[in-house]
Amino acid sequence: MPQLRKDPITGRWVIVNVEEPMRADAFKARPHQRSSKTCSFCPGNESMTPPEILVYKKPAVKGAAPWQIRVVPNKFPALRIEESTDKYAFGIYDKLGGFGAHEVIVETPDHDKQIADLPLEQVELVLKAYRERCLDLRKDPRFKYILIFKNYGQAAGASLEHPHSQLIALPIVPSRVQGEIKGSVSHYEYAERCIYCDMVNQERAERKLTVFEEGDFLGFCPFASRFPFETWVLPKSHEAHFDAISDDDLKGLAKALKAVFLKMKLALKDPAYNFMIHTIPIYAKEAEAYHWHIEIIPHLTRVAGFELGTGFYLNPTPPELAAETLRGQPAGML
Amino acid sequence: MPQLRKDPITGRWVIVNVEEPMRADAFKARPHQRSSKTCSFCPGNESMTPPEILVYKKPAVKGAAPWQIRVVPNKFPALRIEESTDKYAFGIYDKLGGFGAHEVIVETPDHDKQIADLPLEQVELVLKAYRERCLDLRKDPRFKYILIFKNYGQAAGASLEHPHSQLIALPIVPSRVQGEIKGSVSHYEYAERCIYCDMVNQERAERKLTVFEEGDFLGFCPFASRFPFETWVLPKSHEAHFDAISDDDLKGLAKALKAVFLKMKLALKDPAYNFMIHTIPIYAKEAEAYHWHIEIIPHLTRVAGFELGTGFYLNPTPPELAAETLRGQPAGML
Repeated sequence: MPQLRKDPITGRWVIVNVEEPMRADAFKARPHQRSSKTCSFCPGNESMTPPEILVYKKPAVKGAAPWQIRVVPNKFPALRIEESTDKYAFGIYDKLGGFGAHEVIVETPDHDKQIADLPLEQVELVLKAYRERCLDLRKDPRFKYILIFKNYGQAAGASLEHPHSQLIALPIVPSRVQGEIKGSVSHYEYAERCIYCDMVNQERAERKLTVFEEGDFLGFCPFASRFPFETWVLPKSHEAHFDAISDDDLKGLAKALKAVFLKMKLALKDPAYNFMIHTIPIYAKEAEAYHWHIEIIPHLTRVAGFELGTGFYLNPTPPELAAETLRGQPAGML
Repeated sequence: MPQLRKDPITGRWVIVNVEEPMRADAFKARPHQRSSKTCSFCPGNESMTPPEILVYKKPAVKGAAPWQIRVVPNKFPALRIEESTDKYAFGIYDKLGGFGAHEVIVETPDHDKQIADLPLEQVELVLKAYRERCLDLRKDPRFKYILIFKNYGQAAGASLEHPHSQLIALPIVPSRVQGEIKGSVSHYEYAERCIYCDMVNQERAERKLTVFEEGDFLGFCPFASRFPFETWVLPKSHEAHFDAISDDDLKGLAKALKAVFLKMKLALKDPAYNFMIHTIPIYAKEAEAYHWHIEIIPHLTRVAGFELGTGFYLNPTPPELAAETLRGQPAGML
């Protein structure tokens, strides 16, 4: 029996196939293509990228790479810091200069180690670099929103193999974020509770959607998952701003992320995925209602005419089944 | 210089690469895979589908297929007419029974002829079948919205090769449609004009985005196109309901669609695409503000973390360049 489920934040409906669900092994493995080009993110090729914005170096060890993490401007930026924020009209249309920042976080010197394979300390450094860049960029009053995201694998839009994530700072608050805030505020006005805290609490009572729990972090497949094996990671304590994360919580989040990515890699044969940090806009006043979180979406199905035409999603794998599968996989040596 | 453009209906922003645009020939041709399975939509295999809901037969001609168009229930429906419309709560979440209708329109007996290749009379019959199914389904008061769409090519989500489109009737109004209506109404309240009529009028004055104009129909690449070579087809006369289309306009729309698909096939090496008819919900009262239209989206790029995280889109091909390219292609023998 198909079932329609509603996301309590955005009101988005998903049609979940609870009758003949697609299990993890029904999705074809799609091997990642290897490029033969010289990698501009590998140690020794630092001159192939623009100069560093941020670098973490460790005490020199013979033979080791000269850095642990590098943050560089994107060589092919979607937006640029030199552009204007001027607004223009073109008849009934609006245009805006291409002002913004677009950075790349090179997550490790090792070309072949994704988050699932990296030592915990290295994952922690990646997250620390995210926080440091956010805290720096929020000083520029022209930025209203910062998105950190990662595309892994060609199918998920990655053009380079070397492990990296991206940061885009924007002069406007994106519509998707506005939608989340609107939904959160509407729940808060009605219930005087954060909807994300409610999701965490309901899950801690039910335990049907949990993938992993570690320290302050809960990984779970949301009740109205748009995509098969979609997984969210949330801090259990209420906090709207990602970049307010403490050093201790960076450690917990590193554990949670590494565990979730390892579980996905094992259960889904190293799938391509996107990962996005959803945080509140820099100057937003709705911090009581909103809760930062991470959304991880493996690329297993295709978005087609039905999704494009309605904004509904068709999910062939009920999230309770996805969670059970991921929960059963090892979480790594933590 | 990158440029941010805002869709005047939904408020969605798109980052358009106007500096180093991707031209048609920069997109790789992705040949369509051929299946060796017996086709359940080919003449002679009618028993492989559920019984027909609608069939158009022509006077018997020796050797010809016994039908021109068949409409059958989807064998693997996303929603079913036998399910309930009951609503349930699960703690903070909402569920709904899987009630709905999911039909397949087999567009021609010919396995290998897509809309671009079909005779005009056949395209007209396809559109007539769309209209007839909509007019029939709107008699059931449980349906609130009817979406007609088509996925062509595996990359666009098609699982069968034989030319077909799909219809899904829903017990709720989809969020994307709600968003469009909200935007249209807001423009109408301010300007007392339909925003889509404004788009048509501005384009007829500017002539930078036009792909094709025929009878009452205008094909153009919207100013804030999300995807490269995204094309919309609109009736120039104001009308909110697709299924109110006249017999004369069915002819004009058949010409316009065939021309647009032929142009795309030639310019973009037979790309996979999605096509959706956007129409007003059955019981909506905003008919003055809303305007039915068709959105055609060739699959040339991938939606990745940035799009998923923000709801913004990155479009490497400015729509004025896409329109110029498509305009330059032959429109077929009309």
